[in-house]
This record gives sequence, structure tokens and C-alpha cells, in this order.
Amino acid sequence: MDDQRRPRGRGRRPADEVRGEVLAAAGELLLAEGMAGFTFERVSAISGASRTTLHKWWPSRGALALEAYFRSVQSTLAFPDTGDIAADLTDQLTAFVRLMTQTPAGRVIAELIGSAQTDPELAAAYREHYSAPRRALAVAAIEQARDRGELRHDVDAEAVVDQLWGACYHRLLIPDQPLTEDLARTLVAQVVRGVARR
Amino acid sequence: MDDQRRPRGRGRRPADEVRGEVLAAAGELLLAEGMAGFTFERVSAISGASRTTLHKWWPSRGALALEAYFRSVQSTLAFPDTGDIAADLTDQLTAFVRLMTQTPAGRVIAELIGSAQTDPELAAAYREHYSAPRRALAVAAIEQARDRGELRHDVDAEAVVDQLWGACYHRLLIPDQPLTEDLARTLVAQVVRGVARR
Repeated sequence: MDDQRRPRGRGRRPADEVRGEVLAAAGELLLAEGMAGFTFERVSAISGASRTTLHKWWPSRGALALEAYFRSVQSTLAFPDTGDIAADLTDQLTAFVRLMTQTPAGRVIAELIGSAQTDPELAAAYREHYSAPRRALAVAAIEQARDRGELRHDVDAEAVVDQLWGACYHRLLIPDQPLTEDLARTLVAQVVRGVARR
Repeated sequence: MDDQRRPRGRGRRPADEVRGEVLAAAGELLLAEGMAGFTFERVSAISGASRTTLHKWWPSRGALALEAYFRSVQSTLAFPDTGDIAADLTDQLTAFVRLMTQTPAGRVIAELIGSAQTDPELAAAYREHYSAPRRALAVAAIEQARDRGELRHDVDAEAVVDQLWGACYHRLLIPDQPLTEDLARTLVAQVVRGVARR
């Protein structure tokens, strides 16, 4: 259905509702086919929103893909807080690994990060809407654990994020070694207790 | 100079010599301009080797860029072994960060990894010629440190590589936070001694 074709003032749905439907349709297309089949034309055909509307809301297919991706995975990636940081990081990181390896999301996000290397607008949108807010959630959890005495007072929470999620992205993007839930557990254990012999 | 134009049997240089010259010229072009200006045509013009020769030796511009990149940076990335694994990892990782941030190599490798997400041949060449051998060097150093009693007997050396180099690649590819030599030192300290409070 194309919201442009409805007569003005009667039956015209709120923009938020249309936007939500477009993102849902775009997310399904993206997770089914990856970036290769993801075009404004197909999202328009599937969602019923006109291409004019899509272009008005999203400057590029990358920007639309990014928001659709984020909407479709955000419920999976909510951050737990049980008071045990190692358990919470393990829960969170294994859920992330499952999303990356057992759904098409891994391929999609690898392609988005890949495209972002030569598309500054996509890179900025990726950081603003996806990676920076997700990083901030993890940093907040790590700093709370520090404040309640679980972690060293001088822990660099940002660096911990790179040593957990960054390590997983490394295997996603350069798959010399497999990305597994066991790896996620090992990553948390190694950074929490360290690898030095005592 | 084009080796194809020389008469056969007299003055014709060995293929290895021509290959080395092509890679040197390609490496300079790559580090000066990144992937955007890197074409068989320009490498042919700069090196003097014919495009036929280039295509015979390298199946794609990505494959040529990759080998040229590897040749141009490999001396910078030799792995030290002083018997102190934390010091050796720090030396190696800070040298890597300098290469990524103070030369065009960071932009080039980000673009190569980016292109590899949608180019399976480039991805395979990257792993075979660059990332897997480099990973193996680091794993060997970590396992030696384990064997001489510096590290836990159950250390997962592959995962340590992801927690050091992978963490740096994460900041290179998704620059929410800066990639610095201080980060490299922090990454080594955090994975060696752990972040748990004792």
C-alpha cells in the first residue's frame, strides 16, 4: 500500500506508523537476502511506501538498512544486570554470537561495516545509531561493576568492550578462526581473570 | 619499462625481478592513494609491466593490492622474542598501531577488509597471505610463553590474538573510540593481569 495514493485528510496514516511498517519490511528483506538484494525499489514494493517517501526519510540504502537492522535486533541485545559482571558479559556476548552466527544478521552487519569503509555517511550513521549506543550500554555495566568493587578501580571499560565485542567482530570480518559461544565464554574469562600464571 | 617489449632471449629480466618491481611500485601507489586510485592500469603505467603480465600473476586488483601491502609492511611487523611476553606483545601491538595510524596503511587495510566482505576471492587471499600467517606468529609467541611458565596452562592463544589485534581492528573499522599506542598498552595489561579486583 502506498501512502501517497490515499486522499489527503481521510484514511491517511500517521507517519510514525508508516515508518515502522517500512522498517519492519526492510528488516525482513535485509535478514532474508543481505545487502545484495536490498534496494529502495524492493523495500518500496514490499512495504507499499513510495520511493519518494523512502528517499525523504533515509538518505541512502545503507542508512535505511542500518536502521532496519537495528530495529530488528535490538530486543535480542538488551543488556542484563544481575550484579555479577562476568555472568552478565557472558550472557550478552553469547547472545551476540548466536545472532551473528545463527541468523543472517552476521552477514548483514559484516557487509554494512564493509561498505562503511568507503562510505563516510554510512560509517557516521552506523556509529551514531548502532555502535556508539551499544558500546555505551556495555561501558555503563562495566563501570557499575567497578563501582561496586567487582573490577579493578583502573579498569578501562572502553578497552574491555574492544576485547570482547571487538574480538568477536574480528572473527566475523576476518574468519581465520570460528566465532562460537565457547569463544565468547573464553574471552570474558580471559579478560576478567587475566592469562598470566600466578 | 615493459618487459613484453624486450626481445626474447636477450636482456629479458627474470620474472622474480619484474614481480618484485611491480610489487614495490604497487605498494607505493597503494600507500600513497589507497584503494580508490589503485588499478591495474596505473600499476602497469608506474611499474612498466604490461597489463597482460599483471593479470597473469594476480587474478584481481584486490589480490595485487594485498600482496603489495603485505610486502611493504612485513619488515615493520616482525615478531620480537625477549622472553617477556607482556613486553613483546606491547612492542608488537604498539608498532602495529603506529603503522595503522601514522601511515596510509590503516586506510588501505580497512578498505581491503571492507572489500573482502563482498569479495570471497579477496577474503581468501587476505586470510591465506596476510592474516593467518601473522596470527600464527603471535600464537606461537604466546604458546612459548605458556610453555616457559609465564602464562596459564589453559590460555587460549588464538583468543588472546583477537583480544589484542582484533580489539585494534575493531577501533580501526568502527572508530567510536581512538586507536592509540596507550590503548595497545592497556589491552596487553588487561588481558595479561585481568580486570577483576583481587
